[in-house]
Amino acid sequence: MELKRIVGHEAAKLVQDGDVVGLGTGSTTHYFIKKLGERVKEEEIEIMGIPTSYQSFFLANESGIPITTLNEHDVDIAVDGADEVDPDLNLIKGGGAAHTMEKIVDGSAARFVVIVDSSKMVNQLGSIPVPVEVLPEALRVVQRRIEIMEGAPSLRMAERKDGPVVTDNGNFVLDVAFEEIGNPWDLEVELNSIPGVVENGIFTGLADEVLVGTEGKVESFKRI
Amino acid sequence: MELKRIVGHEAAKLVQDGDVVGLGTGSTTHYFIKKLGERVKEEEIEIMGIPTSYQSFFLANESGIPITTLNEHDVDIAVDGADEVDPDLNLIKGGGAAHTMEKIVDGSAARFVVIVDSSKMVNQLGSIPVPVEVLPEALRVVQRRIEIMEGAPSLRMAERKDGPVVTDNGNFVLDVAFEEIGNPWDLEVELNSIPGVVENGIFTGLADEVLVGTEGKVESFKRI
Repeated sequence: MELKRIVGHEAAKLVQDGDVVGLGTGSTTHYFIKKLGERVKEEEIEIMGIPTSYQSFFLANESGIPITTLNEHDVDIAVDGADEVDPDLNLIKGGGAAHTMEKIVDGSAARFVVIVDSSKMVNQLGSIPVPVEVLPEALRVVQRRIEIMEGAPSLRMAERKDGPVVTDNGNFVLDVAFEEIGNPWDLEVELNSIPGVVENGIFTGLADEVLVGTEGKVESFKRI
Repeated sequence: MELKRIVGHEAAKLVQDGDVVGLGTGSTTHYFIKKLGERVKEEEIEIMGIPTSYQSFFLANESGIPITTLNEHDVDIAVDGADEVDPDLNLIKGGGAAHTMEKIVDGSAARFVVIVDSSKMVNQLGSIPVPVEVLPEALRVVQRRIEIMEGAPSLRMAERKDGPVVTDNGNFVLDVAFEEIGNPWDLEVELNSIPGVVENGIFTGLADEVLVGTEGKVESFKRI
């Protein structure tokens, strides 16, 4: 919790007056958005936020950050969490089922900064499943295509709602375990080429910088 | 009209008793579905249909074809139209904005048969725009990404409804003109890799057979 807080606050310092800010989803970006709201209330900066989910929309609203959309403004800086980060700054995201809108917002940003605590840094992606957003009508067909790719898909079930999780876009999420992810870029493209897949949680070539909260400090890794 | 009718009726002969049939969308498959319904009514065959759109769902219903879903059954044979067909049996589809569900159903079928009149046969794809289904929130971002790929995107506007066409999945359609489509497979993958793109209308490597209605006869082209 403390590590997430310090890295979220550090990222809030990167935002400059006049920026349009992509607002990521999750427990680490929670601290980022709250801190950003404080900077706005103290009139240090005037900004607009573009949320990546209902969660970040509600939080931005509460925090006094004016909202805009991708159809109106370009994103100067996006700040978002991740579930895994590898040494090439490739990511797995989607634990919160928001990875489609996250990839749209983060991927369009002039600068995309990832904020994580040190537990998320791995040598190779894939110790956790890859979230894949799927049109409900295509569920079984996509499951079978993924099994041919030697992935083990599991339909994410909801809590506090019967049946499966339904995303902010009205779709299902398959959490797909792979024995090994040799080439994340290939896997990202291959998953997105399955008819019925809206977007998957592998983010290659998108992060410009990763801020990592470790004991007592924040480390920064930049794309070379 | 006559060419569409004869090729639609020819395709209906390919369906066998017990088949689960993918029901394409459009003016040519209209004749296929109606004829299939006649064969069902005359008790020649017992089949189930999986529609690719509300249009084909309504028509199948009217025609007395029992309906099932991809989440219950595998497709034995899918029959669908196309807006362009090249000599390698690559297609452009999506004039009816149904290409996402069409690709899901057609792409999962054990056998996928395309039915067209001879005007749809081309030496190279691309004299018509490529339909691309896009999440509404990502419209402007996707348009820009497509322009970088040297495509000219145009938002499809509705008739008998103000504003843009909204697909059966609740999304927008960009009709994207390209100067030339050198490699359809590459373009299909590249378009689907843009965050916010649900599916595009290029179908490579999917059609097993194309039936072409020409003056007085039906020609068949099979994938080798």
